[in-house]
Amino acid sequence: MQVIQATRLRSLTLQIFQAAGASEEDSTIVTDHLIEASLAGVDSHGLLRVPEYVGKLKRWSTGDTTSRINPNPSLTVSRETDTTAVLDGDWCFGQVCATKAMNMAMGKAASHNIGVVTGKHTDHVGRAASYPLMAASEGMVGIMFVKVNPVMVPFGGRSRLLGNNPISVAIPTGTDMPIVVDIATSVVAGGKIMLAMDEGRSIPEGWALDADGNPTTNPRDFMEGGALIPFGQHKGFALSIVNEVLGGIMSGAGALFHFSGNNAFMCMALKVDAFVPLAEFERDVAQMVREIKESPKSSGTGAILIPGEPEFETKRIREKTGIPLPDKTWDDIRAIASELNVKYTS
Amino acid sequence: MQVIQATRLRSLTLQIFQAAGASEEDSTIVTDHLIEASLAGVDSHGLLRVPEYVGKLKRWSTGDTTSRINPNPSLTVSRETDTTAVLDGDWCFGQVCATKAMNMAMGKAASHNIGVVTGKHTDHVGRAASYPLMAASEGMVGIMFVKVNPVMVPFGGRSRLLGNNPISVAIPTGTDMPIVVDIATSVVAGGKIMLAMDEGRSIPEGWALDADGNPTTNPRDFMEGGALIPFGQHKGFALSIVNEVLGGIMSGAGALFHFSGNNAFMCMALKVDAFVPLAEFERDVAQMVREIKESPKSSGTGAILIPGEPEFETKRIREKTGIPLPDKTWDDIRAIASELNVKYTS
Repeated sequence: MQVIQATRLRSLTLQIFQAAGASEEDSTIVTDHLIEASLAGVDSHGLLRVPEYVGKLKRWSTGDTTSRINPNPSLTVSRETDTTAVLDGDWCFGQVCATKAMNMAMGKAASHNIGVVTGKHTDHVGRAASYPLMAASEGMVGIMFVKVNPVMVPFGGRSRLLGNNPISVAIPTGTDMPIVVDIATSVVAGGKIMLAMDEGRSIPEGWALDADGNPTTNPRDFMEGGALIPFGQHKGFALSIVNEVLGGIMSGAGALFHFSGNNAFMCMALKVDAFVPLAEFERDVAQMVREIKESPKSSGTGAILIPGEPEFETKRIREKTGIPLPDKTWDDIRAIASELNVKYTS
Repeated sequence: MQVIQATRLRSLTLQIFQAAGASEEDSTIVTDHLIEASLAGVDSHGLLRVPEYVGKLKRWSTGDTTSRINPNPSLTVSRETDTTAVLDGDWCFGQVCATKAMNMAMGKAASHNIGVVTGKHTDHVGRAASYPLMAASEGMVGIMFVKVNPVMVPFGGRSRLLGNNPISVAIPTGTDMPIVVDIATSVVAGGKIMLAMDEGRSIPEGWALDADGNPTTNPRDFMEGGALIPFGQHKGFALSIVNEVLGGIMSGAGALFHFSGNNAFMCMALKVDAFVPLAEFERDVAQMVREIKESPKSSGTGAILIPGEPEFETKRIREKTGIPLPDKTWDDIRAIASELNVKYTS
């Protein structure tokens, strides 16, 4: 394990993406996103992804049409009204498309109190919470519905069909810690099962099915054609369907396997002031947060954590101490840097 | 158990509410709501509620300020823009306030593609799905976030603090069966625990805590100061907080125990055509529904059910056969009818 300061990793990552052909603007958006995710402890959506994204940039120039990123995309707005838009990402970095979409939604909300923008033809948007957080920093409630590739069974089903589509909501509190909901609609994210496999551990029952639709505790069964299970039984299934529609169909990307792109999404921004004065809202939200945190705990609970609080606390620590990277991740990033002739101090 | 035709129950219920002092318009809205809920098999939010609502209408005239319904409310719009509004229900029937709010949201969405209306100072809105369904019947996606009275622990907590706030989404399909998501954020609704108590059954672990915050299988423990548990652990907790904010704080009703009214809510309508042509959308949604239903089933699953399908099928049956009412419910309704001098054929 290496622990490296964020500023140093930021500079290195930015150079890598530019050396791999992406524009300075796009490289900056993606780098800042990955650094923020790693700082927040969402490591599965952080710097771990650098090699994957570079590989996808390379595949673009080979003409390979699977799992690729366009280093020079022309994003276009295919439909637009005062309050809505549909964005076509031209196979850009997901972070570039989603950042632009949430900025558009926020601009519409600034003028018309509500903005809703869908996006398609784009790669992995990364940590979904990043986009609602943009809205929360401007006195808005931000909501994001993401449609991802099929990896989860329907409730009562036994093969991959739905994405484990995440839903994220960010709410301003008037303090430096917003409320941040960011939940996948599966019991656990696929990344946790990959991690268990890498570490040679078994997984609890209820996380995944094998390729024949049987419950399994062997993470390899999931990797080899198995599927994730919805959280809360029919409830996670139902919420996943909502994202198939709002993110997949309402962007024009499609649902289930009829899906072009790696991710598709709907971004929503609601201006708080249209409903209640922002100061009053923030006072009430901050009071709610305090009262939840100070309420009686169940035995064995150290502290009641507000959604977003663990990531907020991790970020506070990692901003000082640096970002811990597994040796393999750091080796992979350095290998790519070398290959692209990016200088770094090791 | 009595099984009675919906038309007969509708006529009787309509007369009861009017005899109890409500206007013809309000009585019609509430009656139609309860009949629809009972037809759909959502009995806990159906005609079972008639005695409760009549009791609340009576309490209004006694000046009792707890748990009451204003028979002659003046609903007012306290804030309004082209796309948003905040509605004050003047302590009306929840169904009256929420119907008006969703109608306003749909009107705004018809002109501006999106409409978002919050509502406060209102009684029980009943079956949350009823309002998104109004939007779905007009080519819109309808979304409803409801804040209800505190009855659920925070994740890691042990006393009632949050509502088990339901979220509902309705999606048009171009067929007579829309997709209808309607999920409480607790593992089960309180009504299921009341039912278990009435029937002398114990409840599974994981449904509720007793007044000291310990797990219990005795439904009486929940009734006597216990609390519901969020579904999906931190996920149901997080979604409940979202409703505290969108429904409670953004309507001005407040959060947790600082909450005036029985329910508060946010209604949202999104015009599909602003994003993709409605015919294309409905074709894609209907195809998704078919593909989910026709996908391989887990062993022991008879059919994969789309959210809203069980209620749709129940309604189809009950429209023909009638609505089954427990003897006690029917006796209570008839007693109220007699008391109010409402004639009925028994």
